[in-house]
Amino acid sequence: MEPIIRRAKMLAQEHPSVSKVALAYSGGLDSAVIGKLLLEAGFEVLPVVINLGQQSDLGRVEKNAKAIFGQCRLYDARENFVMNVGRGIKASCRALGGVNAGGLSRPSMAYALAQVARESGCQAIAHGASGMGNDHLTMENSLRVLAPEMRIIAPVRDLDLRRDEALSFAAEKKLPTNLKRALSFSADENLWCRTLRQGAALEISAPLPEEAYKWTVSPQKAPEKGAEVEVEFLNGLPVRAKIGGKEEKGLLSIIEALNEVGGKHGIGRLDFVTDRVVGLKVHEAYECPAALILLAAHEELEALVLTTRELEAKHYIDALWNRLVYDGGWYTRLRRALDAFIDETQRAVDGSVELSLYKGSIRVKGRKSRHALYDARLSSRDSSGVFTQKESRSFAKLYCLQDVIAYMMELD
Amino acid sequence: MEPIIRRAKMLAQEHPSVSKVALAYSGGLDSAVIGKLLLEAGFEVLPVVINLGQQSDLGRVEKNAKAIFGQCRLYDARENFVMNVGRGIKASCRALGGVNAGGLSRPSMAYALAQVARESGCQAIAHGASGMGNDHLTMENSLRVLAPEMRIIAPVRDLDLRRDEALSFAAEKKLPTNLKRALSFSADENLWCRTLRQGAALEISAPLPEEAYKWTVSPQKAPEKGAEVEVEFLNGLPVRAKIGGKEEKGLLSIIEALNEVGGKHGIGRLDFVTDRVVGLKVHEAYECPAALILLAAHEELEALVLTTRELEAKHYIDALWNRLVYDGGWYTRLRRALDAFIDETQRAVDGSVELSLYKGSIRVKGRKSRHALYDARLSSRDSSGVFTQKESRSFAKLYCLQDVIAYMMELD
Amino acid sequence: MEPIIRRAKMLAQEHPSVSKVALAYSGGLDSAVIGKLLLEAGFEVLPVVINLGQQSDLGRVEKNAKAIFGQCRLYDARENFVMNVGRGIKASCRALGGVNAGGLSRPSMAYALAQVARESGCQAIAHGASGMGNDHLTMENSLRVLAPEMRIIAPVRDLDLRRDEALSFAAEKKLPTNLKRALSFSADENLWCRTLRQGAALEISAPLPEEAYKWTVSPQKAPEKGAEVEVEFLNGLPVRAKIGGKEEKGLLSIIEALNEVGGKHGIGRLDFVTDRVVGLKVHEAYECPAALILLAAHEELEALVLTTRELEAKHYIDALWNRLVYDGGWYTRLRRALDAFIDETQRAVDGSVELSLYKGSIRVKGRKSRHALYDARLSSRDSSGVFTQKESRSFAKLYCLQDVIAYMMELD
Amino acid sequence: MEPIIRRAKMLAQEHPSVSKVALAYSGGLDSAVIGKLLLEAGFEVLPVVINLGQQSDLGRVEKNAKAIFGQCRLYDARENFVMNVGRGIKASCRALGGVNAGGLSRPSMAYALAQVARESGCQAIAHGASGMGNDHLTMENSLRVLAPEMRIIAPVRDLDLRRDEALSFAAEKKLPTNLKRALSFSADENLWCRTLRQGAALEISAPLPEEAYKWTVSPQKAPEKGAEVEVEFLNGLPVRAKIGGKEEKGLLSIIEALNEVGGKHGIGRLDFVTDRVVGLKVHEAYECPAALILLAAHEELEALVLTTRELEAKHYIDALWNRLVYDGGWYTRLRRALDAFIDETQRAVDGSVELSLYKGSIRVKGRKSRHALYDARLSSRDSSGVFTQKESRSFAKLYCLQDVIAYMMELD
Repeated sequence: MEPIIRRAKMLAQEHPSVSKVALAYSGGLDSAVIGKLLLEAGFEVLPVVINLGQQSDLGRVEKNAKAIFGQCRLYDARENFVMNVGRGIKASCRALGGVNAGGLSRPSMAYALAQVARESGCQAIAHGASGMGNDHLTMENSLRVLAPEMRIIAPVRDLDLRRDEALSFAAEKKLPTNLKRALSFSADENLWCRTLRQGAALEISAPLPEEAYKWTVSPQKAPEKGAEVEVEFLNGLPVRAKIGGKEEKGLLSIIEALNEVGGKHGIGRLDFVTDRVVGLKVHEAYECPAALILLAAHEELEALVLTTRELEAKHYIDALWNRLVYDGGWYTRLRRALDAFIDETQRAVDGSVELSLYKGSIRVKGRKSRHALYDARLSSRDSSGVFTQKESRSFAKLYCLQDVIAYMMELD
Repeated sequence: MEPIIRRAKMLAQEHPSVSKVALAYSGGLDSAVIGKLLLEAGFEVLPVVINLGQQSDLGRVEKNAKAIFGQCRLYDARENFVMNVGRGIKASCRALGGVNAGGLSRPSMAYALAQVARESGCQAIAHGASGMGNDHLTMENSLRVLAPEMRIIAPVRDLDLRRDEALSFAAEKKLPTNLKRALSFSADENLWCRTLRQGAALEISAPLPEEAYKWTVSPQKAPEKGAEVEVEFLNGLPVRAKIGGKEEKGLLSIIEALNEVGGKHGIGRLDFVTDRVVGLKVHEAYECPAALILLAAHEELEALVLTTRELEAKHYIDALWNRLVYDGGWYTRLRRALDAFIDETQRAVDGSVELSLYKGSIRVKGRKSRHALYDARLSSRDSSGVFTQKESRSFAKLYCLQDVIAYMMELD
Repeated sequence: MEPIIRRAKMLAQEHPSVSKVALAYSGGLDSAVIGKLLLEAGFEVLPVVINLGQQSDLGRVEKNAKAIFGQCRLYDARENFVMNVGRGIKASCRALGGVNAGGLSRPSMAYALAQVARESGCQAIAHGASGMGNDHLTMENSLRVLAPEMRIIAPVRDLDLRRDEALSFAAEKKLPTNLKRALSFSADENLWCRTLRQGAALEISAPLPEEAYKWTVSPQKAPEKGAEVEVEFLNGLPVRAKIGGKEEKGLLSIIEALNEVGGKHGIGRLDFVTDRVVGLKVHEAYECPAALILLAAHEELEALVLTTRELEAKHYIDALWNRLVYDGGWYTRLRRALDAFIDETQRAVDGSVELSLYKGSIRVKGRKSRHALYDARLSSRDSSGVFTQKESRSFAKLYCLQDVIAYMMELD
Repeated sequence: MEPIIRRAKMLAQEHPSVSKVALAYSGGLDSAVIGKLLLEAGFEVLPVVINLGQQSDLGRVEKNAKAIFGQCRLYDARENFVMNVGRGIKASCRALGGVNAGGLSRPSMAYALAQVARESGCQAIAHGASGMGNDHLTMENSLRVLAPEMRIIAPVRDLDLRRDEALSFAAEKKLPTNLKRALSFSADENLWCRTLRQGAALEISAPLPEEAYKWTVSPQKAPEKGAEVEVEFLNGLPVRAKIGGKEEKGLLSIIEALNEVGGKHGIGRLDFVTDRVVGLKVHEAYECPAALILLAAHEELEALVLTTRELEAKHYIDALWNRLVYDGGWYTRLRRALDAFIDETQRAVDGSVELSLYKGSIRVKGRKSRHALYDARLSSRDSSGVFTQKESRSFAKLYCLQDVIAYMMELD
């Protein structure tokens, strides 16, 4: 294959109408390398540092960006992102072994990039997603809709940039990026989830090393005394959380506080093999304490207030929603239609759930709701409820009757 | 309502052709009470104590049965039941918040009852399920198929027997049953799951008291040093397990051993609100360490060896299977057809999974399989795999193209 | 079994608080018989003749009712019913081999009955549905919600009234009802569908006799020259239809006109075996020309304006909707949530469809919509569309890649 | 764009290891043009004429092939294809508005091509599918599995060959292909279905012209006297058909005879807008009399012998099967697993269905089966069947109870 810089120069030929490019800049290896390559190809590069509530030091990221590109734009997309996360909670956003993370964050990043690119007179938007995962779909489908007039450049994918090439180019150019960390992992971080891939995660027969984790301690290192948490929901959204004696309001604050308390108690690690839409299996690890706590509480509440038929239908709709969003369909009419169903069901999802966090496990201690369909008097057979046991007799007989008859006919 | 004995006598009128009744006898309150009521109604009662691998002292149960009925039949249904459990594992038998337990055990109990009733010249089979749950469906649909010539008597349901009535009748008649325990809970136990209902479980805003649990310690009381477990599967079935240095073979032994080690480490408790097919919500607690460990391992292995399309289809089929079995459809042609699909997928589910058990949580440490679709070389972008990143570019463009176009048309 | 009048008198004992009963009165055999039985049991009976747009002579039905009961209430429920039908069209309301008819009409009938019963000081509502079908569920679930204070009496079902008993009772009492027709069929009619059951329909190995049909001629008798129809939709609802040179506006008028023209051309007959929720298979025939024409047109338009993903999701949601409604779930939160999804998709379903009707068959001749996702320039490979054929190459490679690899691994 | 021959020469560079190419040769425009281009590019081309039961004159196709390429191989793939069609019938193979045709035929064509290519020492297989449809997926996924050692060349797609280019090249080179027909349509034909695309079919607001159809007359031109047909199934497969007084045995003969009689009576035309997996909507017309008759009969029989639960599950599985096969997944483990489910259900699908064919419409006249779950005695309410109407009362109450309660709680 041709040297990396020569390949980069072909980008200028492919996009002759482009002089200024807005670049999604995380401060990690790939975004630094592709930014530098775009410079070498002759583009002006405006790095955009997008605040999605990640725990990184964004000030330092900005400083590094200015060092390389002479300019930088910091964009606070937390409000937009938290709305997506709220939709995710209502849709029970577990996806393919983990929680839906990139499917929620990329649309917000695309939103930020589209805003900045337009305001700053760019003709293209560049991002660092490779061609091996879902991120290039989640990012580009959003960009196509939000900024159809912009060219999209994905140098890692479009130049078939290998990881070893990126590492040596960064070293050679002395790019201000954490090369040591980059050797071990590729991390993606926002307030909802920290994702670890590549490097040590390529091995599937052993767990990731402890030092991979940043938000959480291992259950073994968690304190002997656990924590109690109560989360209150209104129309399916978390509106208040009591953590120890302290109360948090608003989804952003709740997530931040739960990430902290959960991480301290060893909650939030996932280590799993999952699928990319391009047909690859990959091994990933997540840190997402707040996500796991909120999803557990939300599902518990749904079990209390929705009917079996509603739960069954919603289970299917949620699966459709998550697959669609995971594969890049945030900005679609279908997502909006699925959300119309979900929102309607969430009108009953009010109430609160108590949980205890202890050395890596979340346990539901109690739940209550004014919409609860549970009624102790009904469940006990000692009371005259809405029906008598006797009425169940013919129900039991008729409920599977046809299948029983069909089975017996065959025995004859 | 009429006194309980007078109601019981109506059973004799309703079933004039019946003189001898085979009774599902667990030794618990309800089975003792209904057996006694059947005696009072003038039937000969043959109690059948069914061994499903429960941890109770079956010798004592048998002794009590003989004390009341003058006779008893002990039937070992473990082999039949373990086969059902194996089918359950292959079908990822989580159901409505818990694991599928009664849906697997009642068909085996019905099988045992049908055998014994026929051999002993009974004309009817009696069981203690109430009309509030699913057990009367799971039991009776099986009996209708397996012993169509037998009358079925469900005195708790058919006489609308209240729990307080049962308690005072048992006290009055001095029936040898654990009245104190019965006041707190109704428990159902087999090797796959111990289920707790009623009594303290009627309260949903607080967890069950510690003394409810018999198989498991609380995570807080589990030892500081966890345990390592490796489970090996062949065609989707667990065939070998290494627990500490010891190796277990065969599903029955594996389940027994995992129940022990899991219980010791605080694994296996579930506390949840769920739905009965008759339309009630109920609160239950389960103890099922082996079930949770085996299902986690099996799902991890499936994620490694099945394609996304297979996983998605199987997810749906599993849901159908579990709903059908949970609602009483074990002996149906549909279950058999769903199993044909499942068995076909399980041909690839060979391999082993390592897990660590620590203070209430199960963590997957590693997985391997000769059918693994994961390949570190493919997942890394540093190698020439089956496709290049560049090929992903047009895939990304076409994959959601129609939805992107539809969305944009609307913005115009 | 006891004579029918003695059984009827037990109704008085079962409902001691009831003196006046509102009766769903169609003028058919069953409603006349049960009304008379309620009189014999000592109730005052207020027959309610509900106008759902059926083609029967409602004046004559009213006259007969007054002859038997001394009173009658005619209630025009067409507006309410047409709204339900509109929802049905949007949900592609085919159900289990036919079109969803009873699931739409019973809620409207229940609505009418609840209004009248309340205004007239009734304490109960009676209806003529048997226990063999779905009508008692669709009717009673609606009544439970709309008139929870009313007792519900279903004499055919609750008295286990046989058809031969009803026939002899009607003859003996000289009830003014069409006994001859009743011998051949049980018919249910509203503007959306005429349903034929029982009698000759009990035979499944031969078609129903010609005289069973009232709205439609046989295709063989239809004129040699067919008819052309154009239907225009707005947000998924038919708003205008051109039939020959004439234009109809509004769903009610459109349905009436299409029933006429369709029936004349032999359109609208269905003859099929279907399932009741109680576990029976039944043989039915429908006449529903407008329904089949409108559903065909609506589906054609959806195929033009919805994306594949939307069509696939909606196909599933429609199936849930129709099963729910067919089984009696009109007044449920779940139906409302499913409708929220459906309504959102229907925002794109504008446009018109041309069809030709000829001797029993409906053919789509053309379709157009401002939301059409079809574009002749894209479908032809002669133009530079949104993508080039070359881009499809790697799409084709990646789209099923994982499944191809999995299959080949197994061949090794 | 570069002239077509220059582009073709690049194929030689792209596939340097290839000297001899097996070409799927239908005799139509595209296969003649790409074959000639492959010759121009320097390859030896072995045209393979695959007999799938199409009604074309294969002798003439072979002659033309020899005229162009100096050689030709005729391969009879009917047996292989009829097995696929049988699987399709069992899976109710309607797909996206039409019947599943290409999804069944391409795997058989790939099978034939793989055999011939290997026997004749080819290093590559070429086919004429464009990049706009599903055919290149259905063909290439099959080839990748069946002949992994062969290069695949799809000149229409890979050279971005426009239709007008193909037409002028064919004219210029005087290729023996039906240019006039090619101007109007692109047709694809096998015993199961004749498909019409492109040309006049690009217009969606008008029906295709009469001369497009070859197998069928228009309903208007069909004889006034219809035909009667009886089809007998064993394990879901058609095994015998009576057409008029004549009897046909074996699926191939049955299909041929039904195509003839159906076509004569105006049966079998479909005209619809559908979706390609690449994201395009296209307009197509099908002629498939036997397919529509057999699918109608099969579905009617299934409605008679399968339970509601089985029908519902199979409806979903069939949809998965058809989508998978339509998108190219014939040779997958998933298809095999879905077929395991389907085959198990088909054990009950024995019996026969009578239909009448008249001027474009198919009507079921009667059905019978030894596995029928229909029983006139049960469906009538005049007999003591397996349950009494009274038993339905509490069934009706409990069946939707939870949803009724949930709805009413909200009204408070």
